[in-house]
Amino acid sequence: MRLILIGFGNVGQGLAQILHDKAEDLKNRHGFEAQIVGVATGSRGIIAHHAGLAIPDLLDAISTDNFDHYPYSDGLRRYDDAVQMIRETQADVLVEASPTNLNTAQPALAHIEAALATGKHIVTANKGPIARDLPHLRQLAQAKQLQIRFEATVMAGTPSIATGIELLAGCTIKEARGILNGTTNYILTQMENGLSYQAALQQAQELGYAETDPTADVEGWDAAAKVLILLAGVFGKQAQVSDLAVTGITGITQADIENAKQAGERYKLIASATPHGGSVQPVRLPLSNPLAHVGGATNAITFATDLMGDITLIGAGAGKLETGSALLADLLAIHRLRPV
Amino acid sequence: MRLILIGFGNVGQGLAQILHDKAEDLKNRHGFEAQIVGVATGSRGIIAHHAGLAIPDLLDAISTDNFDHYPYSDGLRRYDDAVQMIRETQADVLVEASPTNLNTAQPALAHIEAALATGKHIVTANKGPIARDLPHLRQLAQAKQLQIRFEATVMAGTPSIATGIELLAGCTIKEARGILNGTTNYILTQMENGLSYQAALQQAQELGYAETDPTADVEGWDAAAKVLILLAGVFGKQAQVSDLAVTGITGITQADIENAKQAGERYKLIASATPHGGSVQPVRLPLSNPLAHVGGATNAITFATDLMGDITLIGAGAGKLETGSALLADLLAIHRLRPV
Repeated sequence: MRLILIGFGNVGQGLAQILHDKAEDLKNRHGFEAQIVGVATGSRGIIAHHAGLAIPDLLDAISTDNFDHYPYSDGLRRYDDAVQMIRETQADVLVEASPTNLNTAQPALAHIEAALATGKHIVTANKGPIARDLPHLRQLAQAKQLQIRFEATVMAGTPSIATGIELLAGCTIKEARGILNGTTNYILTQMENGLSYQAALQQAQELGYAETDPTADVEGWDAAAKVLILLAGVFGKQAQVSDLAVTGITGITQADIENAKQAGERYKLIASATPHGGSVQPVRLPLSNPLAHVGGATNAITFATDLMGDITLIGAGAGKLETGSALLADLLAIHRLRPV
Repeated sequence: MRLILIGFGNVGQGLAQILHDKAEDLKNRHGFEAQIVGVATGSRGIIAHHAGLAIPDLLDAISTDNFDHYPYSDGLRRYDDAVQMIRETQADVLVEASPTNLNTAQPALAHIEAALATGKHIVTANKGPIARDLPHLRQLAQAKQLQIRFEATVMAGTPSIATGIELLAGCTIKEARGILNGTTNYILTQMENGLSYQAALQQAQELGYAETDPTADVEGWDAAAKVLILLAGVFGKQAQVSDLAVTGITGITQADIENAKQAGERYKLIASATPHGGSVQPVRLPLSNPLAHVGGATNAITFATDLMGDITLIGAGAGKLETGSALLADLLAIHRLRPV
């Protein structure tokens, strides 16, 4: 399977590392062999080679500085434009792992459209194109019998998307609700342990869970993007952030947390998607709810179904290898469906 | 998709009911249309019709007494022998839902072999053939490019098998451990609520969770069968019950439960499978373990993985529609892989 990687930050490097470290295991267990034939970054170069790029050299070059340091060999091509590289490079799958833009979904949207137009399956960790344009992209893909997979966009490699879309396909899902942002769950957990909001936020920043500007996490926008993805992926509904009721955790005080505790409850930032719409809201959960016991940066999702009642999935929601492994799971799913 | 159902008790009827009630939904959402072309029971008749049997008539006949009450029409065939019916009836999938025999796996094994020999995929709720003979059956199936699926054998429709085998295929699973028997978990939960073992068992029997002879549940044998299935399915290891360390819950006293509670822990009957073997044992879990919060008849499984850490799945482990929906999920998985 020939891959083009767009974006070679944490997530792209995580996938490359896994493909390299597990090459033999993946071949033996699944008959799966992958080759990276093109890599594009925003500012550190775009290269391609029809016979495959060497993963250790890619990781070396990027850790040194940029792809100018990638060793030259016959057939190596350098590009200025990712879309051009995608069009001109023969590959089976485009892996989109460039930074998310929720408003325009660009440039990821252009990458994906170029890839579909030239016959490539799509695997994306980029939330923008899925949150914003899944129905349109599915149409393009179906016309060419190509797949679009996006496990990495929600809960990293914890298989929330495949569970909601494929494994529970026989059920009618009434609601998907969960803890889909690890940073805010970490902050709420630490507030329950006695820290103030500010102290908990600072700790989350020191641990690398929260960005210097934590707005996207603490105001609920990151979770809202995942709600849009669940609406589109699980319920076939296209919506915009402005259609959702979104409240973050910045209004939650230590007194609120303490009151909840007294009542035997816990505050969680709950992202919810139903056939009728979506929301992100702090909710006081009774301890009988499995989501109440999900602490720290861990994520969780509950699918409320007609035939099976509630099914809950708990696991990591972020991380280099965790997200890389979601991309790999999608690649293996495409591999399983290929004609032998 | 033409189906043969072997066994028309709770589980088989559950599947038939779902296929009937959801026929339009399944067609619209998944392009999936199923037809039951043969049904075999142990003592209530075996019938087949190449043009399909009517589900309401099947359910009527069985609720009245037996398939002698199924209305006659041209082309209806009655059999004495399930294997003969399987061989002589053209179908795409055999659904095995007859009673489990863990020692011989019969007669299910003969049904499955006859189906594979005549080109039918296998979907089974019967634990025997999977626990005992999965490698052999996989070989037969692969030689004919057929699938063997067994989601219903562990945790009903909570997708433990597909998660462990397909969704986490890119990870190395180090251990699968869980609460795989609802009856014992219900009894332990009620003992924690203050009931004696005997009173809790009686309650479980009244609710229909436990059989009149509860041995298979309370001595750990039902959970052990699921460990064998996880060993075979997830780790590719064939084992026998005698290879496992199995302890049930009959030795757990109220004093044990109380001691654990004092220490902030909970007893759970934990079934575990690793690449090195399996066990079923009562374990005192700290409340930080997500399995500690799984109460009542609910089941749960944690996959310990290299790339993703722990992933936990919580949901129903039994029930007519719950198990029927596992069979449907497997049928839909086969449907997705069929050439368009």
